Amino acid sequence: MGEPFVHEFRVRWGECDPQGIVFNAHYVAYFDNAITELWRVAFGSYASMVERGIDLVVAEVNVQYRASARPEEEIRTELTIERLGETSMISRLEVRRGDELLVEGRMRHVFVETKSWAKTPIPEWLRPGLETYVSD
Amino acid sequence: MGEPFVHEFRVRWGECDPQGIVFNAHYVAYFDNAITELWRVAFGSYASMVERGIDLVVAEVNVQYRASARPEEEIRTELTIERLGETSMISRLEVRRGDELLVEGRMRHVFVETKSWAKTPIPEWLRPGLETYVSD
Amino acid sequence: MGEPFVHEFRVRWGECDPQGIVFNAHYVAYFDNAITELWRVAFGSYASMVERGIDLVVAEVNVQYRASARPEEEIRTELTIERLGETSMISRLEVRRGDELLVEGRMRHVFVETKSWAKTPIPEWLRPGLETYVSD
Amino acid sequence: MGEPFVHEFRVRWGECDPQGIVFNAHYVAYFDNAITELWRVAFGSYASMVERGIDLVVAEVNVQYRASARPEEEIRTELTIERLGETSMISRLEVRRGDELLVEGRMRHVFVETKSWAKTPIPEWLRPGLETYVSD
Repeated sequence: MGEPFVHEFRVRWGECDPQGIVFNAHYVAYFDNAITELWRVAFGSYASMVERGIDLVVAEVNVQYRASARPEEEIRTELTIERLGETSMISRLEVRRGDELLVEGRMRHVFVETKSWAKTPIPEWLRPGLETYVSD
Repeated sequence: MGEPFVHEFRVRWGECDPQGIVFNAHYVAYFDNAITELWRVAFGSYASMVERGIDLVVAEVNVQYRASARPEEEIRTELTIERLGETSMISRLEVRRGDELLVEGRMRHVFVETKSWAKTPIPEWLRPGLETYVSD
Repeated sequence: MGEPFVHEFRVRWGECDPQGIVFNAHYVAYFDNAITELWRVAFGSYASMVERGIDLVVAEVNVQYRASARPEEEIRTELTIERLGETSMISRLEVRRGDELLVEGRMRHVFVETKSWAKTPIPEWLRPGLETYVSD
Repeated sequence: MGEPFVHEFRVRWGECDPQGIVFNAHYVAYFDNAITELWRVAFGSYASMVERGIDLVVAEVNVQYRASARPEEEIRTELTIERLGETSMISRLEVRRGDELLVEGRMRHVFVETKSWAKTPIPEWLRPGLETYVSD
């Protein structure tokens, strides 16, 4: 309970800009990757949720940049769920290199029906898998 | 005074994801493009500031997603400066399709010296150009 | 007859890598953008073709890198159609900065039905618009 | 001798386009990633070569698209060196999903001095590590 979901990966050359560091927008993609990876580990795949008629849309993202990652560095995203609501969830994400916190932020996702894109309650079959990562 | 800086552009196919809409992370890149474009219009180029020993680093970004842009659509980013501080600035960014607000957010940038990456006061020669876009 | 289709644009900061130049893979995206822009100018939009049941898939791309583009530079892609076949077309693409040739290459696209993704003849209503850009 | 270098990875959502498949330009980035990974495995890191004054520039890339990869799929790039010349090398790259060949191509890289970007012979200390992957 409260253990973060951890996704490790290596910074790619093409993700870095002329300052020699990861381009700011890519951290949002890193956040997004961590969400997809959590779904894969918890539910087999993200696609399997979509096949059952449920999808996620991003409603909000916040990123605070503290330090920079560079090409080839092995970093990781740690994800905890701060709030598991009726139709939405707020994730807290931290990108770390070893012990060092590089970037932290939050994403708010809303659960929708794939056909209408109307807001829909988080299905019961998803809740236990997500609750594993809810922070205290 | 208070007129936003406007950058028009067209959504590219490769920026859109399997949901058929612009991938969430790309809006941060759109924000970043608007900043660079403002510099180009106000100061000739972003590079000319860097040549004078000053650079910007992104400290924070916030994005709220209201509606989706699709491939080939002509959209625009409107930028106003909410706060022009001693060593940092906060920009407000709105991505619009016609009158419709698609995405809004804020970016906080810190001015740094290119050699040391140490925080540095906003140079006097930059202030008038930026003040043009400061909101009331 | 034989005049290239020209698409002008400005290099974005986030498209450049730690060498300070456009990351190699982005030139393929630039090629792709030029194709979409040609469709927009010649046929209103790329999407309008898809709505009529026809889509394109990329079968092959070749890129030769001669010189580098840098952030904020205004460059352009020039596109001519080298071969307009029964079910496929070969485009020749040149990325230029003023008179200087930076990158040149070719893309081969195959026309497919949107439902089956089966190869299909180039529709008659597309041919005149494309023939405008066929090189001699 | 002749065993390919293999780099496994998972397709990211944001790399896929509205056709639901990896956007064509990203395969060139996948190729580029495989090169960097080979350097990391063979020489510790790509950066360590740059620190010794040697860099690579891409001179040419060719990609043939045979089948499509989709979000979350685990795929791999197999790399062999077809030609290890005096100042350049040609790599052959295959992207596979299990036994299925999705994309194949070639990249030609030229070795340059980091200061002048002038063509330079492949250093002797790099040759043994690269020869491991030269195809017969």
